[in-house]
Amino acid sequence: MGNKYREAGVDYDVLDRAKRETLALAKQTAAYPNYLGATVDESSFGESASLVDLAGQKLGFVIECLGTKSMIAKSYFDMGGEDRFFDIAYDAVAAVVNDLICVGALPIMVNAYFATGSADFYLQPYAMSLAKGWQAACSDSGAAWGGGESPTLAGLVEKDGVELAGSAVGKVPDGVLPLSGSRLEPGDEIVILYSSGMHTNGASLARKIASNLDHSYLTPLPSGTAFGAALLEKSIIYVDSVRDLMTKENILHYASHITGHGIRKIMRADRELTYRLHKLPPVPEVLEFMAGLESMSDFDAYATLNMGSGFALYVKAGMGEKVCETAASHGKSAIVAGVVEEGPKRIIVEPLGLTYDEKELLIR
Amino acid sequence: MGNKYREAGVDYDVLDRAKRETLALAKQTAAYPNYLGATVDESSFGESASLVDLAGQKLGFVIECLGTKSMIAKSYFDMGGEDRFFDIAYDAVAAVVNDLICVGALPIMVNAYFATGSADFYLQPYAMSLAKGWQAACSDSGAAWGGGESPTLAGLVEKDGVELAGSAVGKVPDGVLPLSGSRLEPGDEIVILYSSGMHTNGASLARKIASNLDHSYLTPLPSGTAFGAALLEKSIIYVDSVRDLMTKENILHYASHITGHGIRKIMRADRELTYRLHKLPPVPEVLEFMAGLESMSDFDAYATLNMGSGFALYVKAGMGEKVCETAASHGKSAIVAGVVEEGPKRIIVEPLGLTYDEKELLIR
Repeated sequence: MGNKYREAGVDYDVLDRAKRETLALAKQTAAYPNYLGATVDESSFGESASLVDLAGQKLGFVIECLGTKSMIAKSYFDMGGEDRFFDIAYDAVAAVVNDLICVGALPIMVNAYFATGSADFYLQPYAMSLAKGWQAACSDSGAAWGGGESPTLAGLVEKDGVELAGSAVGKVPDGVLPLSGSRLEPGDEIVILYSSGMHTNGASLARKIASNLDHSYLTPLPSGTAFGAALLEKSIIYVDSVRDLMTKENILHYASHITGHGIRKIMRADRELTYRLHKLPPVPEVLEFMAGLESMSDFDAYATLNMGSGFALYVKAGMGEKVCETAASHGKSAIVAGVVEEGPKRIIVEPLGLTYDEKELLIR
Repeated sequence: MGNKYREAGVDYDVLDRAKRETLALAKQTAAYPNYLGATVDESSFGESASLVDLAGQKLGFVIECLGTKSMIAKSYFDMGGEDRFFDIAYDAVAAVVNDLICVGALPIMVNAYFATGSADFYLQPYAMSLAKGWQAACSDSGAAWGGGESPTLAGLVEKDGVELAGSAVGKVPDGVLPLSGSRLEPGDEIVILYSSGMHTNGASLARKIASNLDHSYLTPLPSGTAFGAALLEKSIIYVDSVRDLMTKENILHYASHITGHGIRKIMRADRELTYRLHKLPPVPEVLEFMAGLESMSDFDAYATLNMGSGFALYVKAGMGEKVCETAASHGKSAIVAGVVEEGPKRIIVEPLGLTYDEKELLIR
């Protein structure tokens, strides 16, 4: 796996090694803010978000980015497609807050980072769509949009491009345990919440595929939807489902946002456990189309794209169906997909007859 | 003013209008996180950092970026200069925390954002210098480095480039008032802390100047230091000085980080007040060189570059000299540069015989 991505300019092996070295340096700084009454939860280093205890209140903190999906929105618009910049801003917030809630912190504030290659970006008809999408996503996350930064980086960011990123600070509700891999137990049920499509992972690959298609992003999928329109279906924000489960019953133990590395993120926790999946969500048409054009094996496709799985919740044994009902109450599709078992760190995907071993996910 | 920057690809007028429209949208989201016990301080919208009250604790939150200074480090290295990537990472953290402390929040955690055009960046000899510089800056800020994101954005970020940004969460010490323009009073003394050179503002202009010099970044300044080496002198982090002044005596009323818009940032507060400066810090050689080559008037130079002023503290009448001593105890040079007066919003710079009116700084 990984060759497809390497061709598209993303070399995860190199990236992952640098990440690990950097993580080691970061860990050495943990005690610096103790004088403010802040205690960094060192077990959260390398998790989706960082946790800090501040005089008894547990804060989560994260920075995330959209990747290159904005280039798809730009190209699709330039080819005569709709303005989908609202959707990509929504995506960027989703990338941020869906990471934040993996530690059980509910977003308080999300700040925006829009870097352009030229200030002329703000003269484009779609410029304000970004702000509107950001605001809508903050609304769906229950977060305030506190501000942000919008640098013009001529020569560093592509001339007509815009790069979206964001950061968030959140809070674990009082009296509720943060989510952590250390809380996983054999017998926990794995609930998978569906994705709406590509979400924010796979944009480089999608761009490469589009460049090889005669009609690029205007190529119709079997359903008739244009490839670009399908790619730009906005991500799902899972905050409401996690919020409802962050109660003093503590039935939610852990959560994983399925992004880069696809379904391998199911084994994100730093634990020696086996994750057995006996059911999978339906595959969004656009991801099936991409995997098919790239002649990806199931193994590669599920290790690269989300293939329908947007977010995983690990809940107390016997609570899976109830959690699916909670998700449904927010209009979200979910299935009890599997179970956590004693055993070596791996994912057994029964419907596909596949196993992903620990070595397939060296970076968490 | 502004033409010099426009030529270099930065159009502040366009950028500022979009910022104002976006700010209006952001303000509508302020109440969303109230259910978590979080109250956004709406007066901080548009300030250097956002303030949130969380059950009596005052948190600050900010996202900031380095701009295009990384391109200077890259070019200087490629021309045979030293590896100065440590310094630019330090700069990026400085940009973040120096903004955060303007609301009186001392940094708890700083997260990193390193976006590259290719994962091959991490194969370069200077790659790990970034992480080391980030760590050193966290140390000088008293902040934990909680994590971050290092996306490869092939096609969006320049192939050999790296874009640095970061976010921070901080805390106003218990029992101490946050810093705010609303606390400014006529009679307050303005203490200016010196900059070490260009800091993080002016990189686009510096790149343009270098491109017109026969020896580019290797051009010697009068002192013999190479232009590139001088540009890459790392920023000063002012956290220690602000920390010492954040006591229950509340003598520090407001602070302003002198970045884009140069000395115009002295009137950053949303107040109808006059700022009279009777003294200015010495001008760093590299900034004098840039202003000279661009044939900038004093008016333009001081409105564009920091010209020696890195950070401004607005303190209770009579406390200026004491504050300078505090700064000196951390090895920082500072002067009592002026005073806040009743009057129209403007800056009177007596040593230069210049006045900047309110219209010169529509964006805060």
